Amino acid sequence: MKVIPPCDPTADDRLYHICITVISLVVMLILAVLARRMKVGDRQKGLPGLLSPVNFLDHTQHKGLAVAVFGVLLCKLWGLLISPNPLPFTTDTVNKRENWVILGVFFYPALYYPLLACGTLHNKVGYVLGSLLSWTHFGVLVWQIIDCPKTPVIHKHYSLFSSLPQIACLAFLSFQYPLLLFKGLKGTEKNNATEDLSSSYYRDYVKKMLNKKKSTKISTSSTDKPKLPQRITDAVKSYIYTPEDAFRFPLKLAISGVVSFITLYQMGLLLISAVVPSLQTARLGVNEDVANLLAGFRIMLSPDKHEVVRIVVYYMWCVEVCYISAMTLSGLVNLAMLMRSMVLHRSNLKGLYRGDSYNVYNCQRNIRASRPALVCWMGYTSFTAAHICIGMIIQTIVFFLCLLIAVFLVIIPVLHRQNLILFQVLPFWLMLLLVVLIQHVIARFCFIKKTGGTRDLDNRGNLFLLTYLMFPVNVLIGVILGIWRMIITALFNIVHMGRMDISLLNRNVEAFDPAYRCYAHYLKIEVSQSHPVMKAFCGMLLQSVGQDTKAGQRSQDAEEGIQLVQQDKKQNKVSIAKRARRHWQLLYTLVNNPSLVGTRKHFQRQTADSFLNGSLNRSTREESKKEATTKEAEAAASN
Amino acid sequence: MKVIPPCDPTADDRLYHICITVISLVVMLILAVLARRMKVGDRQKGLPGLLSPVNFLDHTQHKGLAVAVFGVLLCKLWGLLISPNPLPFTTDTVNKRENWVILGVFFYPALYYPLLACGTLHNKVGYVLGSLLSWTHFGVLVWQIIDCPKTPVIHKHYSLFSSLPQIACLAFLSFQYPLLLFKGLKGTEKNNATEDLSSSYYRDYVKKMLNKKKSTKISTSSTDKPKLPQRITDAVKSYIYTPEDAFRFPLKLAISGVVSFITLYQMGLLLISAVVPSLQTARLGVNEDVANLLAGFRIMLSPDKHEVVRIVVYYMWCVEVCYISAMTLSGLVNLAMLMRSMVLHRSNLKGLYRGDSYNVYNCQRNIRASRPALVCWMGYTSFTAAHICIGMIIQTIVFFLCLLIAVFLVIIPVLHRQNLILFQVLPFWLMLLLVVLIQHVIARFCFIKKTGGTRDLDNRGNLFLLTYLMFPVNVLIGVILGIWRMIITALFNIVHMGRMDISLLNRNVEAFDPAYRCYAHYLKIEVSQSHPVMKAFCGMLLQSVGQDTKAGQRSQDAEEGIQLVQQDKKQNKVSIAKRARRHWQLLYTLVNNPSLVGTRKHFQRQTADSFLNGSLNRSTREESKKEATTKEAEAAASN
Repeated sequence: MKVIPPCDPTADDRLYHICITVISLVVMLILAVLARRMKVGDRQKGLPGLLSPVNFLDHTQHKGLAVAVFGVLLCKLWGLLISPNPLPFTTDTVNKRENWVILGVFFYPALYYPLLACGTLHNKVGYVLGSLLSWTHFGVLVWQIIDCPKTPVIHKHYSLFSSLPQIACLAFLSFQYPLLLFKGLKGTEKNNATEDLSSSYYRDYVKKMLNKKKSTKISTSSTDKPKLPQRITDAVKSYIYTPEDAFRFPLKLAISGVVSFITLYQMGLLLISAVVPSLQTARLGVNEDVANLLAGFRIMLSPDKHEVVRIVVYYMWCVEVCYISAMTLSGLVNLAMLMRSMVLHRSNLKGLYRGDSYNVYNCQRNIRASRPALVCWMGYTSFTAAHICIGMIIQTIVFFLCLLIAVFLVIIPVLHRQNLILFQVLPFWLMLLLVVLIQHVIARFCFIKKTGGTRDLDNRGNLFLLTYLMFPVNVLIGVILGIWRMIITALFNIVHMGRMDISLLNRNVEAFDPAYRCYAHYLKIEVSQSHPVMKAFCGMLLQSVGQDTKAGQRSQDAEEGIQLVQQDKKQNKVSIAKRARRHWQLLYTLVNNPSLVGTRKHFQRQTADSFLNGSLNRSTREESKKEATTKEAEAAASN
Repeated sequence: MKVIPPCDPTADDRLYHICITVISLVVMLILAVLARRMKVGDRQKGLPGLLSPVNFLDHTQHKGLAVAVFGVLLCKLWGLLISPNPLPFTTDTVNKRENWVILGVFFYPALYYPLLACGTLHNKVGYVLGSLLSWTHFGVLVWQIIDCPKTPVIHKHYSLFSSLPQIACLAFLSFQYPLLLFKGLKGTEKNNATEDLSSSYYRDYVKKMLNKKKSTKISTSSTDKPKLPQRITDAVKSYIYTPEDAFRFPLKLAISGVVSFITLYQMGLLLISAVVPSLQTARLGVNEDVANLLAGFRIMLSPDKHEVVRIVVYYMWCVEVCYISAMTLSGLVNLAMLMRSMVLHRSNLKGLYRGDSYNVYNCQRNIRASRPALVCWMGYTSFTAAHICIGMIIQTIVFFLCLLIAVFLVIIPVLHRQNLILFQVLPFWLMLLLVVLIQHVIARFCFIKKTGGTRDLDNRGNLFLLTYLMFPVNVLIGVILGIWRMIITALFNIVHMGRMDISLLNRNVEAFDPAYRCYAHYLKIEVSQSHPVMKAFCGMLLQSVGQDTKAGQRSQDAEEGIQLVQQDKKQNKVSIAKRARRHWQLLYTLVNNPSLVGTRKHFQRQTADSFLNGSLNRSTREESKKEATTKEAEAAASN
């Protein structure tokens, strides 16, 4: 094996970082000037919008830009932690490495910030700057990779493979910005500021929900227990994510999904490239000295030294295969869990939109913003990535150990017909099996009496006698059961370690699981702030305001929809007939949703209620559909 | 350390076993003859009763005899598994040990069976035989122990301490049988056959339940969140079992409790005596050779050999302390868990009696006998013991490792001010801590707006910006969170490994935990077969039948109460007025309990319903108490 020399790319990393930092700064300045001018012009978002280019609570936004930038950021963070030279500004970084890591953790988000900000203004200049910036990033990265495909860190090809997701994300950005520019020139681009509320998605959601209610009611009314093949199919289906028309993921979940996937790839790559090459080197380096070494430990595999080398090489190959299998298994398990999580996210969100918080949380929770909820919401995406890392490491280790045990204690002994420890106490196992079988058979045929559709105990005396006589042997069966419990619990928890959407603890203490607690809080914020029905109503409200005042207020910041309503309604004079109708509608809603009464203390709520009610009655004329909507409206209103 | 010579007691174990087997056989024959004679005499239970001396579904029975015999059996099983000579019938048992274990597992229950059976007939001869038998067992055991207090197995005093619970149980039996004989002679003993149903316990339970309803309703109506000290007190209280007047444990749970306690003792004894003496021997045997040995591994603790010996002895003493602490901790944890289990058993049973199966099982379950439920019910006591064994072993190992890590990586380095690995990356930890703090503070003061009692998001733009910027550092925080999750999950599961009454899995898959599944099934049988309200009604029924027919049928087998009712009612002619009243009562019950209508297909059920209804109305005149009873009656009737 050759030693890889340290490679200095033509595009020196240090120079590149300084240049790109300056360029990014200039781009931000240009954008800021532009934003200030545009704000004066047509009451756009302007500077504040530039400072928050991602609306994480938006379901309808084009998610590509944000997802790609988060992907790039994650890859950079990965490089930061792995490489011996976290930030390429100084040369003597070996001494104070952790300080540079701390700096890098805050530097990179700032560095890639303009890539996001360029898309915020919906302006041609912004798109041009974005294109240039992403091309620069992409070009330099590809140039560096072509210059130095092999690096001495971890494995010669590690850095090449590790930067693939980063290249993909940057390529996406380099393609997306010109596309946006092209659309902007053609004038087909929608105005993003009001896009969220005026998009048809929320109204479609409400319509779908109202249409669906009937069919689901029929399916739940038939409470037949499904048959086994049906249940297996259902279980498999619940692990396969199929997109639904009437549901889009919140941006934060979409980012989490992509970030998880990239983490999976990077972690897998790291686990493979850190261990397998060394194992291979060790295997190729085995020579006859190993026989002497083993003889030193009094292990005699064979009298022939060549034979010893052959056996050792074979065992090492087995270890290698076990490791790669464990890694692959862990990767596949995590992929399946990722899919399953997406399915569960959707059903949880839908459930909470329906106000079904008992099913999701297993207790009645207050769905509203709070300090811990907000902190959890902020960290959710990052925590997902971290948990997948930890999960994969543990899974690989545990699966590796299990496979090693299986191979060296079961498969190889069986193949070579020696050291069959497990089969020496066969009569004992047979006895236990027999006792379990006998208990089941006797329970079925002697102690259970079916009389006219009901089942009851029979032969109580003999049942008690058997219970007493089987006490000691059941203790032995219990030991096996206990070991099985340990295995299944550990395996379940290890397999689900990377998933935050389920608690690994018992249902009574599930909030003690920090990951699940974070997920629960995250859902709270997501649901309370971006309930589709609420957004649909806000959209309608903005429309009606626009129709009433005939002013250009429609283009106001969509996020402030609810606050707007309140102010606007005060200014607009409502006719008495309309007011009376609204009062009646309010009453109607409250009668149907007694739980709303408690939340009607404040004026803001009152207005919102009557409005919700108004839009509600507009969209639901039929009596049969009433319940579903009021329930959803209630959930929306209680936010 | 001296070698303990093998010790042969004067009462040779082989001879003793043969004799006692013959004696037990003779006792059983005498009892059988006696039972046949008594059956002819006054329609007592007779032979079938002799073959099932324990009524596991009885709440009111005097539980001492059964509990003591189960304790003796458990100790014998323990000896069977530990000793190199499982059954003392042959001398060359080393070869086919597992076959003798298999035989012993079935032999010992049969051997101790007469100890139970002697109490069944409620006859003076039975009590005399029981006293003699228990005295023999007790006497021989004590004699053997005095003869050979030291044995070479595991530790010189192990067998002495290990047989203490057995001696206690046998002593209890030796005391109990003469007491029963004395009571029988004085005529104060109750007739056990009808004792269960005619005892006042069930009626007291119903009365207590009806009285309590009001106070609990008031307490649940005040839904104020309790304060922290209150919650801590409640949490501590929920781990302390305080007996309640109106509730007695089923016999099987009482046996399980005692068996668990004995297992705890035996396991602790085994763990201590198998490891600590060897550690002590090793510590006392350390001499200056150890310095040479360590030098062979290139470990230089000190240039002075005496100093090396001192350090090694000190380290070994630390290991010993860690091990004993781990064992003690494990024992205490299991004791606390045992207490907590008892509290939970009671609340679960009460909940299921109330028909509150959703809270107990987290899903709607059908509470009735079935094959798996019956098998689980039979094995429950044994499985409890086995799970405590497994739990204690794992707890001791894990606590031991944790303590070792804490002592050798934290406490000793801190005391000696060297190798402080954890404190070298202090700025990094500080940074993470600071970021978490900042996020919380900002979330509290900048992003949450309180307007009139409700909380909502504020400054959304800045929130999104912060979320983006904090993404990489949150990944690092997430890693710590993930490790914390792993630790807390593992710790929780290890601490609760010995408890069967909670599932260690996530709430959606909790039935996959074999121990919890067993417990759930056990509860089903227990509740469906010995519901106190049902038993109270059966008792009333038997009483009324007795009053109606004035015949001696009261002394009939109490267990067949319900079946009896049906047959007797057919024979008795009921006046039309009574029948009309019953029809009306039936209607009344069904109107109040619509869920009962579905179960009224069969005649047996119909009769039972109208009867339940009858007794029900008799005991509940007030309207306010109606609901509680009908609910319980419903639960009882659905069995």
